[in-house]
Order: sequence, then C-alpha cells, then structure tokens
Amino acid sequence: MAHGSGKSGTSRRTFLKGAAAAVPAAVGAAGAARADDPLITEVQDWASGLGEGVDATPYGLPIEFEDDVIRRNVEWLTADTISSINFTPIHALDGTITPQGCAFERHHSGAIELKKEDYRLMINGLVDEPLVFTYADLERFPRENHVYFCECAANTGMEWAGAQLNGAQFTHGMIHNMEYTGIPLRTLLQEAGYDAAAAKWVYVEGADASSNGRSIPIEKALDDVLVAFKANGEALRKEHGYPVRLVVPGWEGNMWVKWLRRVEVMDRPVESREETSKYTDTLADGTSRKWTWEMDAKSVITSPSPQSPITHGKGPLVITGLAWSGRGAITRVDVSKDGGKTWTQARLAKPGEKMALTRFYLDTDWDGEEMLLQARAMDETGYVQPTKEALREVRGENSIYHNNCIQTWWIKPTGEAENVEVS
Amino acid sequence: MAHGSGKSGTSRRTFLKGAAAAVPAAVGAAGAARADDPLITEVQDWASGLGEGVDATPYGLPIEFEDDVIRRNVEWLTADTISSINFTPIHALDGTITPQGCAFERHHSGAIELKKEDYRLMINGLVDEPLVFTYADLERFPRENHVYFCECAANTGMEWAGAQLNGAQFTHGMIHNMEYTGIPLRTLLQEAGYDAAAAKWVYVEGADASSNGRSIPIEKALDDVLVAFKANGEALRKEHGYPVRLVVPGWEGNMWVKWLRRVEVMDRPVESREETSKYTDTLADGTSRKWTWEMDAKSVITSPSPQSPITHGKGPLVITGLAWSGRGAITRVDVSKDGGKTWTQARLAKPGEKMALTRFYLDTDWDGEEMLLQARAMDETGYVQPTKEALREVRGENSIYHNNCIQTWWIKPTGEAENVEVS
Repeated sequence: MAHGSGKSGTSRRTFLKGAAAAVPAAVGAAGAARADDPLITEVQDWASGLGEGVDATPYGLPIEFEDDVIRRNVEWLTADTISSINFTPIHALDGTITPQGCAFERHHSGAIELKKEDYRLMINGLVDEPLVFTYADLERFPRENHVYFCECAANTGMEWAGAQLNGAQFTHGMIHNMEYTGIPLRTLLQEAGYDAAAAKWVYVEGADASSNGRSIPIEKALDDVLVAFKANGEALRKEHGYPVRLVVPGWEGNMWVKWLRRVEVMDRPVESREETSKYTDTLADGTSRKWTWEMDAKSVITSPSPQSPITHGKGPLVITGLAWSGRGAITRVDVSKDGGKTWTQARLAKPGEKMALTRFYLDTDWDGEEMLLQARAMDETGYVQPTKEALREVRGENSIYHNNCIQTWWIKPTGEAENVEVS
Repeated sequence: MAHGSGKSGTSRRTFLKGAAAAVPAAVGAAGAARADDPLITEVQDWASGLGEGVDATPYGLPIEFEDDVIRRNVEWLTADTISSINFTPIHALDGTITPQGCAFERHHSGAIELKKEDYRLMINGLVDEPLVFTYADLERFPRENHVYFCECAANTGMEWAGAQLNGAQFTHGMIHNMEYTGIPLRTLLQEAGYDAAAAKWVYVEGADASSNGRSIPIEKALDDVLVAFKANGEALRKEHGYPVRLVVPGWEGNMWVKWLRRVEVMDRPVESREETSKYTDTLADGTSRKWTWEMDAKSVITSPSPQSPITHGKGPLVITGLAWSGRGAITRVDVSKDGGKTWTQARLAKPGEKMALTRFYLDTDWDGEEMLLQARAMDETGYVQPTKEALREVRGENSIYHNNCIQTWWIKPTGEAENVEVS
C-alpha cells in the first residue's frame, strides 16, 4: 500500500510520543497510561441507553456543549444594537465555510423581515425600460454558484488606535465566507437594456429604513457582482438580507446591499452618505481616501489566540488561521513566532481561491516559551500584508476602515494569549 | 467594458420578455405593468420602521417564512424514530453545501450526547502498542479540509419496488455534502505503529448502544479516510456524531461511523451484522452482493420536482439538480425532457470535484406541455448512470441498497410533478 507500509516504520509514534517525557497529557495517549480510565473500562450511559430519534430536530442546532460558539457584539461600540455589529466566532471555527448561524451581522437600522411575495427589485436609470422583478421572476434567470468572503470595511478597525480588543473574534470577526447562489447583475442590466455608452455607474439600494446605498462602477457591476438568494445552499438568513442581497466579490461588506430593492444605472456616482461621511478613510492630514472598495490581502491566526489558548502544554501544536484578499487568490502565508523577525511558510489547506477564505496550518512543536505569533498573507498580485507600523506611516491613525495589518498574539508560557503590538 | 457593451445590444430583454405574450406573470417584470403596484409606490413598514438588533440571535436560525425547509422522516419506514432516517430537503436547496441544520440523520439507536471531555478513541489490534486518544490529543495532529458527500446506501432504495415516494427529498434526500476538518486515519494508524505486513483491514466502531461497526480494507483506511471533528467550519452536530465521526469519502454512509470510539487493525474483516444481514444487496436469486462500499454515479433533478412544482407557467425555466459519484469527479450531466429519448447536456456550476456534490443547471424554455424529466450523470471513470430497467435486469428488485437509477419526474401541464416510471 502506497501510503502505509512505506511510512509506518519511520513516522509511527514519533508525533505525540516524541513529546512524551515532557507532556504528561500527551503521554496519556499511549494506552498503558489509560488502562484504568473508567471511560475505557466501564460501559457508559451513552453506550447502554438509547438516544434521540430523527423527529427530534427538524432543523438542527449546535449541541449544548458548544453554546459559546456564537456571534457576540461589543456593547460600547454603538448607541444601539440596531445600528451595530456582531462578530463571527472565528477563534472556534476551522475549515473555510462559515455557517450562516454564526456569520457576523451589521445593520444600519436593524434586520427587517421581508417576505418573498412582497419582494420587488427595480432596475432603472439609463436603461431602455425600467423593470421591476418579483422574487419569482429572479428564479427564472440562469444562476451561478461561488464561494466568496464578505468583510466589513471596519474589520480590525480598532487596531488603528492600538491593541484594544482581546480575541480574534473581535479583532477580525467581521468576516464570513459562504457559497452563494444568484444571478449575475450583468444579466438583469442586459435585460433592462442598459445604455452601454452612457452607463458609468450603478447605484444599489436596500429596502430597510436606512436605505443603505452605494455607487459601484459599471465595470464591476458587469463583471462578477451577483444578485444572490441562497447562501450555503439555503435561503439567506433574515440578518443577511433575506430574500435577496447583493454580492460584490472582494469589495467591502457595506456594498453587499441587503434586502436589495433598486439598481439605478447612472453616468456618475451618487456620493451618498455611506460613501462620503462613512466608508472613506481619514488620513493623518485630515483628508480622506475615497473609493477604497477592495479589501487588501490579510490574515489572522485564529488558534492559538486569546479566546483559544494553548491548554496542552509544550510539544506538538497546531497553529491555524485564515487568509484572504479582495484582489484574487491567496498564494502564500508565513507564520512568525518571534514578532516578525523570522518566518516559516505555512501549509495552505488547499490552493487559494479568488476572493474566498483560505485556511492555513503550521504544524509545529512548542517549547513552552513565550511567542509573538504573527501571520503574513500574500496574494496573486504579489501584494504582501504590511506591518501595523508600515500601515500607520502611510495612513495615520484616524481611520476606522481598511486595516489589514499583521496581527500579533503574545503567547505566554501558561499558554494564554493576549493582543499586543510589537515595534 | 468586456462584459457590457458588447453583449447588451443582442441579449437584452430577450429572456423574460421573449416569453412575454404568453406569460402574464413574466410580462409583469416590465416596469409599466407594475407602475401601480403598491409594493413599489407606497412606503412599506420595513422601510419606515426599525428592524432587529445584532444581539437578537447569537446563533441564527432560518427566517420563519422558510419553516418548510426542514428534515422530514417517513413514519411508516421503521418501528421507531431512534432507528430511522430523516431526509435532507434537497428540493428546496441550491448550490452544493448542505447546512448542518438540514442535513439528513440516520441512527441505529438514537443520537447520543457525548462531551468532548468524555471522548476516547482507541486504536488497537495489529499495532505495536494500543493507543487511546482524548479529544484534546486529536487536536494536536495535522488537519486536512475536504468537501465530501455522505450518502446512505439505502438512498433511493424504495425505487427498487416502484415509484413510491413523491418528492426528491424522500427519494434522494439521504445525502449531504459538507466541508470536513479532520485528521487522516493514516496518521493515527502510523502513530500506533500498525503492522504493515499483517494489517489487511480495520474495524471501526461507534460509541452508541448499537455499536455500529464496519470493516474497511487497509488500503482505503490509509488513503483518504478522515477522523473528523468539524463540518462546515463548526463542531459536528449531535446527530452527525459529535464530537468525532469517521469520513469515508465516496463510500456508503453507514461506514462513516459516528461517535467513533475504536479502530481495530485486523488481518480479516469482522463480517459484522451491519455488513452481512444489513448493507448487503440481495439479488433476484436470493444471493447477496457483499462489499458494495462505493456509491455509484447518480443524479437527480431537484427542481422542478414534486415538492418544487413549476408555478410560473410556460417560458423561461431553470431546471436544476445534483450529481455525484463515489469513484471520483462528475464530468457531465445530461437532462431529458422526454423520458430518455433525447438528451441535452446540462451546465455544471463548476468542474466536478472528487466525491463531492456537483450542481447542474439547464436553462431552458418550457412550452407548457408535459415533460418526463430525467438527469443522467457521468463520472471520470467513464461510468454512465443506468436506467431503472437496466439496473433491475442485473440486480433484481429485492434489495433496498445502492439504487442509482435514473429518476423520472412527470411534469404536468399544470406545472405539478409526480414520481413515475417509464419503460
């Protein structure tokens, strides 16, 4: 057997047992040390009694023991939870898909309930004829499926002013990654007969009270933008824009308009509130960067991290995290244990995919000493994720948006972790 | 713009408006017909009031309007729901990922609750030293991520005796497709020092009262089998084997042992109850096929289907479904509207991936006449999904397992659909 006999002789029992002398918990993995473990020697309740039937959970939820793997908001962040954010528990997840139930939310006037029967989507402006689509109409157009990340422009925004939030969920949890099913916006624009000569922008608007609206260049609108109605196979959740949201691959989450009600074809941008006083990046001199749509390449170690400390002592340790880029596929992630002095290339779980989360691992041995853990992403354009210092030099510290700096976790000899800055 | 100006002139307004005269509902898509629609002309409640805050749903559930998209069981199928099956609502899903909450369940003695702290996994038999791993031990080994389908061997089993169940959920819903995170079983076998010369099989066993146990050839065990603890990023659900299940890519679901407690390395198969009196395929002459592990290439149209009728009348219609193979990637799916007389190649949403669901679409025009809809899958080995007739000729009608025949939906002029047989 290709995999078996060749490797067995050399690699067997080298992994945990290699750390055996120093790590009692891992030594325990060897059978002899657990011969008197009642969980092995005695028949347990779950092996002698009956469990729950298949009619118990028509729609299933996580088991009670996982009740800490939830979205969390930060109470002081905004005046009201209807105009606030909660955070994906990325410190507790693995792989790349984010389940809808724990995918972060961001609302400007709360999550509304809008039935499919009441849904209308208008395409107007520079078109041959304005059109209004029902949900049933949309279901008749050719669909596409793509996995994309959605990141809030303000993700990691508190890091501009310093290491303030203690946990990957709070520093980097305004992101999720789902498989979307939808119709290319291009198809609907063609259906309405957009004016190919005059059309330079589309203005997209949500049906909620905030009328969240953004201007998108026509090139992007005709490229990969989706009018989506499913995520991870099932209907969008209420908090993610049920029944229809816009998907704008690689671009900031605020443009992924939820409860999408209107797309106006225009010859200029609207310069709405959400793209002037908000979602622009104030620089050190008080001027603002505008049209900062793309999310720069970024990564974060999700474990170990403040909410996911090392509990097993020294020896074999899996370091893992997420990397992504709004400009294409992730090509490489490096990990540093010494605050950026030296780097080791991490293993990508699979080749990076355009505008989707990439999971990376570094399988290593921990010597029990403190570490300053960092990850550094590279994307297919050759861009390399910058240090916090380098980013501040260019952008100052006034912004709350587009902070894609290298994050540092101080791992203490106890295995606990803390959000820190290195200089 | 590459996508826009070139295509707009020719393809615009040809899709829905092409069917306009005959389909009043689709005509309505043109703005003029909806100028007096109060959903367009009047400010709606959801646009004037405030929605729900981000603290409302720490772990989110589907919106109430989707409360029919749930797992369902069939009451008469077994004597008790603890030894029964429920079905994924594939008729209502799109894309390929199955959310855990609506992924089918199959239990032999009910779904048990087993805490991570109480979890133990023994590797014994033909090994240098038996080992017992805790959950915390497993987290220290290098992990992999893969999307795989899991299909019960009895999926579509009622079709052997005829078209009995009216709905894709019930005929083909014993399948789900998730992104798993786990450790190669190979790694743990190497850790225990399996006897490469003598080891021919492993026997894998669950911790529930049924002690569901199956024999797996060592070649497969060393190839792609995973000891998995996450699905779609988060912990396995209770009903899918929390905290640890086996993932046996492409092979029948019964081998994907849940609440995995033991892997014994052996020189022969155990020939357990679950691989002799059950999960073998009885032929017409009363003998049984044994060791029928791989799931043959298969497909089904999920919409339109009995639970997902055509409600919009004739004109543009999206026909969609799922295809998969236990032997590798799906390379092609054809769709027939006339019960298999003529076929049209469907569009795959993306290139097929090994042992994972593939979504296909056929974007077509419906003339309002009856159809006998079928899908036919092909995989990378060159295998072509057979007709029910061809399958019965070889296998008879005594089995309840491994029915991968072409499924037929009779679409009536009303748009309703029914499970039928064609000869």
